Amino acid sequence: MNHERQAEEIFSYQHLFSFTKNVFLAIGCSEEHATTATTTLLSADVRGIDSHGVARLSGYVRLWEAKRINATPDIKIIHESPSTAVVDGDSGLGLVVAPFAMQVAINKAKQAGTGWVSVQNSNHFGIAGYHAMMALQHDMIGMAMTNASALVAPTFSKERMLGTNPIAVAIPAGTEPPFVADLATTTAANGKLEILQRKGQEAPTGWIQDAEGNSTTDAHALKNAGALIPLGSDREHGSHKGYALGSIVDIFSAVLSGANYGPWVPPFPAYVPMPENQPGKGLGHFLGAMRIDAFRTAEAFKKDMDNWIQRFRSAKPIEGYEQVLIPGDPERLFEEQRMKEGIPLLGTVAEDLAKVGQKFNLSL
Amino acid sequence: MNHERQAEEIFSYQHLFSFTKNVFLAIGCSEEHATTATTTLLSADVRGIDSHGVARLSGYVRLWEAKRINATPDIKIIHESPSTAVVDGDSGLGLVVAPFAMQVAINKAKQAGTGWVSVQNSNHFGIAGYHAMMALQHDMIGMAMTNASALVAPTFSKERMLGTNPIAVAIPAGTEPPFVADLATTTAANGKLEILQRKGQEAPTGWIQDAEGNSTTDAHALKNAGALIPLGSDREHGSHKGYALGSIVDIFSAVLSGANYGPWVPPFPAYVPMPENQPGKGLGHFLGAMRIDAFRTAEAFKKDMDNWIQRFRSAKPIEGYEQVLIPGDPERLFEEQRMKEGIPLLGTVAEDLAKVGQKFNLSL
Repeated sequence: MNHERQAEEIFSYQHLFSFTKNVFLAIGCSEEHATTATTTLLSADVRGIDSHGVARLSGYVRLWEAKRINATPDIKIIHESPSTAVVDGDSGLGLVVAPFAMQVAINKAKQAGTGWVSVQNSNHFGIAGYHAMMALQHDMIGMAMTNASALVAPTFSKERMLGTNPIAVAIPAGTEPPFVADLATTTAANGKLEILQRKGQEAPTGWIQDAEGNSTTDAHALKNAGALIPLGSDREHGSHKGYALGSIVDIFSAVLSGANYGPWVPPFPAYVPMPENQPGKGLGHFLGAMRIDAFRTAEAFKKDMDNWIQRFRSAKPIEGYEQVLIPGDPERLFEEQRMKEGIPLLGTVAEDLAKVGQKFNLSL
Repeated sequence: MNHERQAEEIFSYQHLFSFTKNVFLAIGCSEEHATTATTTLLSADVRGIDSHGVARLSGYVRLWEAKRINATPDIKIIHESPSTAVVDGDSGLGLVVAPFAMQVAINKAKQAGTGWVSVQNSNHFGIAGYHAMMALQHDMIGMAMTNASALVAPTFSKERMLGTNPIAVAIPAGTEPPFVADLATTTAANGKLEILQRKGQEAPTGWIQDAEGNSTTDAHALKNAGALIPLGSDREHGSHKGYALGSIVDIFSAVLSGANYGPWVPPFPAYVPMPENQPGKGLGHFLGAMRIDAFRTAEAFKKDMDNWIQRFRSAKPIEGYEQVLIPGDPERLFEEQRMKEGIPLLGTVAEDLAKVGQKFNLSL
């Protein structure tokens, strides 16, 4: 197809899936890995987290071109105990490495009650929520974290030391949809800042700081040595807590596995040079699975989760708001809509995808 | 001793320990339980978290008088797998129940690599950090969470649905002191609000809302059906993330164990009536331990943790700030000072303690 690019274009999930999978096959992924990588990547578009989906496909391809991503990795367990493992991703796509590691966690949980896997030598893994949600079908609670290249300044610092380091937790319910939290440990995710940049708008106070560590509303401050601010916005409102949470993600993902941590995490843009004197291998993830019936029967748990969800959803809303949301509600509504009506891509994103396709004689 | 009460009075750790232990013995605790409860409670005073230490002793005694706390509990495991357990606290002091459960988690981790314990039928457990730190001496990472009675409104809600639900994570290092994060999932802990109330000062915007859900600086708003705000302060600055984190703590602590959750958690003040139609037993905790060498050698991990800590501590500070802190730094400095120079108590707190002592013919 040769679309004339518009401000926004709508693609069916199947169409984007087929195109994306062909790109992964073209860079040398196996059939199985290409399917896994595509499913993982597109889960972001489907759930409305546009910054982490196909908009990043060209970035992954550039990392492969720069030989920072290995399309045929030998992903393996290098250390384990009954409830734990360390996985070496062999520089593979995080989109493939993390589902492998999450499956290890699920298998461990079947035997030992819980499974916890720290991953070294990986790359960006898409949205954390996808990996956490893998546990749901097994009546398990799933958890997923990853570190990422440094964009965030700790409280009192003007230096970027942490990534946006997300935490995702997926919890099954009975008749209610599952509870799925997926949160960057910053005030605002970088994707939200990119939207403001594109629209030429200012950022709210408390999202970013400039190179000297002063609060700024300049959405472009990150390009001038500025930094994202940890969840909490400032010390008085608890930014030291967001900093601590981001640090925990970094340590669980990378210090436990032997990956790079803090300012040494490999950058996503292939044109950014690798940090010097890296202490570990690639970037790190941390995946966990807890079997519900290792604590109490899944039936009793789900009955209480339904009650929890119903009670919170019916909490009295502030005037002007319809109702209290349960984590995962907005993403689920996106999913229902987009699987039916298609996935809208910005013209610039479709353009970028089409260019990636051209490299491999694939048309979008 | 019959001190004349002053604005602030200093007591040695040993003096407060002996007094507090005698109070616990007087309400019927065993020698072992009284020692454990005292050690746990005083760890707050020692670490500078004055709101959670001996200032609450009279509150615990009132709960015992109201028959909400059982001084001679039969604490036991009621469900388990190789890496998990559910502990029934038998309405005991959380100060005793949580260390029992943490020891179970540590024992599980010795065998299975990790141990995760959800606790029902407990009461307030002091500071979360104390329990998490129990893991450190075993070269394990420790985690501790608890739910608490509802003071916090979810994003978009004017109703109190969650406690301040803290998360603590303690991570061992080598030559550096350990990383110890202990954070309420709210913008500000209730203890900080109490300080402002005592001083007659206003609270910063973003800490609390009034009964209608409007932002307020009235430090007394909680007494008039107001609520604490989740970490993030408002939707634009990520309060939905703080709400999600507090919810995860609630679910891990109570829905996994069969304790009360959300608005049904028993209140700490004995004069506040119990919520009606409670779905579970007592309040809940969640404790975890991960053996470092279930992932990689403790030696390699600690070397990287030392490097992590040193690199973060030397991150360039913003002008006007001395240096970037590592989670646990402020509390450790308090501990060093107070074990040497004593623990300062407000006159009102010392007065309250003396009154508790009088009930049992114990002088402070």
